[in-house]
Amino acid sequence: MFPDADYSGRLDRARALMDERDADVMLLSVGADLPYFAGYEAMPLERLTMLVVPKDAGAVLVVPRLEAPRIALRGGAFEVWPWDELDDPVGVVARHAGKADLALIGEQTWSRFLLELQRTMHRTRFESASAVTRQLRMRKDAAEIELLRAAAAATDRVVAALDGVAFGGRTERDLAAEVQRLVMAEGHDIASFAIIASGPNAASPHHEPTDRMIEEGDTVVVDFGGRWHGYCSDTTRTFVVGEPSPEIAAAHSVLEAAQAAGRAAVRPGATGEDVDAAARKVIDAAGYGDHFIHRTGHGIGLEVHEHPYIVAGNSEPLEAGMTFSIEPGIYLPGRFGMRIEDIVACSTDGIDELNRSPRTLHEVS
Amino acid sequence: MFPDADYSGRLDRARALMDERDADVMLLSVGADLPYFAGYEAMPLERLTMLVVPKDAGAVLVVPRLEAPRIALRGGAFEVWPWDELDDPVGVVARHAGKADLALIGEQTWSRFLLELQRTMHRTRFESASAVTRQLRMRKDAAEIELLRAAAAATDRVVAALDGVAFGGRTERDLAAEVQRLVMAEGHDIASFAIIASGPNAASPHHEPTDRMIEEGDTVVVDFGGRWHGYCSDTTRTFVVGEPSPEIAAAHSVLEAAQAAGRAAVRPGATGEDVDAAARKVIDAAGYGDHFIHRTGHGIGLEVHEHPYIVAGNSEPLEAGMTFSIEPGIYLPGRFGMRIEDIVACSTDGIDELNRSPRTLHEVS
Repeated sequence: MFPDADYSGRLDRARALMDERDADVMLLSVGADLPYFAGYEAMPLERLTMLVVPKDAGAVLVVPRLEAPRIALRGGAFEVWPWDELDDPVGVVARHAGKADLALIGEQTWSRFLLELQRTMHRTRFESASAVTRQLRMRKDAAEIELLRAAAAATDRVVAALDGVAFGGRTERDLAAEVQRLVMAEGHDIASFAIIASGPNAASPHHEPTDRMIEEGDTVVVDFGGRWHGYCSDTTRTFVVGEPSPEIAAAHSVLEAAQAAGRAAVRPGATGEDVDAAARKVIDAAGYGDHFIHRTGHGIGLEVHEHPYIVAGNSEPLEAGMTFSIEPGIYLPGRFGMRIEDIVACSTDGIDELNRSPRTLHEVS
Repeated sequence: MFPDADYSGRLDRARALMDERDADVMLLSVGADLPYFAGYEAMPLERLTMLVVPKDAGAVLVVPRLEAPRIALRGGAFEVWPWDELDDPVGVVARHAGKADLALIGEQTWSRFLLELQRTMHRTRFESASAVTRQLRMRKDAAEIELLRAAAAATDRVVAALDGVAFGGRTERDLAAEVQRLVMAEGHDIASFAIIASGPNAASPHHEPTDRMIEEGDTVVVDFGGRWHGYCSDTTRTFVVGEPSPEIAAAHSVLEAAQAAGRAAVRPGATGEDVDAAARKVIDAAGYGDHFIHRTGHGIGLEVHEHPYIVAGNSEPLEAGMTFSIEPGIYLPGRFGMRIEDIVACSTDGIDELNRSPRTLHEVS
């Protein structure tokens, strides 16, 4: 699933950052760290898979023996160390880690394994590996941006297909299944999620599709995505069944202006909090401030949510190569909701827009 | 997705086990613990969701505010405490946990949150909550067994449908997509996985489907499952395209006998290691011992792999209500592979077989 990349180079850059932090070893398991550094994804199961990256020695991928045949060697960036059903994998990891004062551990590693490692390596201090992994993973290279662009283009084609679909009289669940079929038909590896939130349900940002029948006049928030050669897509458009009421049309115009203001604020040196503030200011000024109840966006790459976050309090400057969502929303409890979400990249002189489908309110039958 | 259950009773039983272990509080997050105790599944994302279960006070579900509308209150088994985008959720959890000498933490909780909790609650010792959660979760009640039975019956219908499907000339990937369509058509909520491993690929137990074209004479291991009202299905049958070679037919007869021996060993008081040994003995005696490279099975319920494990070294006695897989396999590297997997329940006087499709080698065109 994961395309070839310069895994040895990524590990070398990680070691340089470990050195700056006086870390002796980095231990990575489930989540997107292994795909990034080893082109391999660990099954999120009870058998431990862990990439051991000592600062001064070669990396070793400790895996259950029955997973070993699935591993591509990636030009020798790491060695593979299979463990057998009756071995103690935590002991194997500890031996490869060696004597360490400070170990960094991947942030999604199961607490069960961290507790066992803390017991086995009782002289070692553990900190989150995020300090190293986020610095590398949030700065995408050109090949990564092209994968995200291809994933976004596929979801734009799904939006175009949905413009020709009848929404009225179908359930949210049924429409969610259709969206997932379209995502797969457009070449994704996985259709990870499809939020279909209609009528009053649209006021719940992370609504799960129900058997509610979609009705004339409803707004329908369609927020969906998947993975394309390991990289994530995530886009949202709001549809309306029939003619929008004047109130809905007006609120959506505010939302379009807010989302455009967020995009206009993207450039190297601006911060996540600047982009958030730019979008929020438009919604506040229109009197909907209390109804925009989440941050403006999240980074995206091998994971659907990753650094940088587009949120108040994030004062780290954006750089060319950072990729993230811009997704303001307006939610009126018990009545309706709407959101517009694009994936964008910060470019050397502003913004590179990866999603490009019309950001207007999409009228459907 | 999760049916109603006696969540208050489950929390009370957990508190009794916490009391035996002198634990002051239990902290549960991603994975199947929240579904079991609160009928709610946390999104595995960077915003913390955590059920705080103090030994001597009411349980509190700490959730991101934008998830709160999705939560069913489950008869007041717990309170909901939404946190806002700019709050510190670890601080909120620590306040609800109160002064604690010993905290138990859900085994799949992200290490990032455990490290933050250890820093915030620096006088508290942390241990895995597994000691409590496994004791409850591995003993299914009658309603849970009926859900697992319904999930298994749906996968048996998929096997019956596959008997009429042409395998030859199709890719593994294409057949995997068809299996997942059939699983959804039989009413599952999610088609979680479909291993289609053909010809020499069948010798890799956790093979991922490729573009390999399935050929005449291949064995094809079809291992698939999903979730049905939250409960998992997981079954494997081995197919052969055309007539099996005498060697393949003979090896599959050995495997059928081994799998039957595993089932025959199930009864209250037998151990996971007894069941493993019963199946393994048949394969060893036939000379294939080096080619059965994994344990015989795993528990199943809200998670596809959970306690009890059917493996050498597990000497805990089985009890009525425990549910698990029996899935011996024979794998000849570079040549072929085969596996037969059923989900079964230990009953008061032996075994309750949840999967019932024919365990023979399935001949297809």
